Amino acid sequence: MKSNNIFSLIPADLNQEWVETLLENKDMCIERIVSKGHVSPASGWYDQAKNEWVVVLQGEAVISFENESEVRLKAGSYLDIAAHKKHRVSWTDPDVETIWLAVHYS
Amino acid sequence: MKSNNIFSLIPADLNQEWVETLLENKDMCIERIVSKGHVSPASGWYDQAKNEWVVVLQGEAVISFENESEVRLKAGSYLDIAAHKKHRVSWTDPDVETIWLAVHYS
Repeated sequence: MKSNNIFSLIPADLNQEWVETLLENKDMCIERIVSKGHVSPASGWYDQAKNEWVVVLQGEAVISFENESEVRLKAGSYLDIAAHKKHRVSWTDPDVETIWLAVHYS
Repeated sequence: MKSNNIFSLIPADLNQEWVETLLENKDMCIERIVSKGHVSPASGWYDQAKNEWVVVLQGEAVISFENESEVRLKAGSYLDIAAHKKHRVSWTDPDVETIWLAVHYS
């Protein structure tokens, strides 16, 4: 039995946001996401079929919700985003890697 | 929409290990666990009906597995423990709070 580390193995090239599936089964999926200044496409909102429980483990980010104020997340902040709750990542820290852990569930 | 923080609101009295359900549905459950020197009861092994994906976010711990060597976990270490895989927490740091995030899933 061997453990991995959520803070290690960050790719040097972060031209694109890094998304890595850590665990997946029929009901749910755990992802590690590494952002560095990345934001959601300006063209629209995320409208996801599954719920998403998300925690920021390092760095800082802002999530905006349709018709609502935005939420600033720093290390340790967690949030439960219901399916079809329209949102977008409107800012992530451009100077350090922001590491997210996301649990997508039905 | 408001976020909470996984590193805050730690109870001052940690005579017992602190276990808090952050999210629960029919398929899975996300818990925050805070240990400070706590270990599993010496009397036996955990033999869980569900799988458990666990990550240490702060502190340090050792998990022992039946018939296997032990695994040392520090901040960021994660591990997927299959259902019925017999294990116990054999050590947690007595000087700082060890904060775990555990996802129990079927």
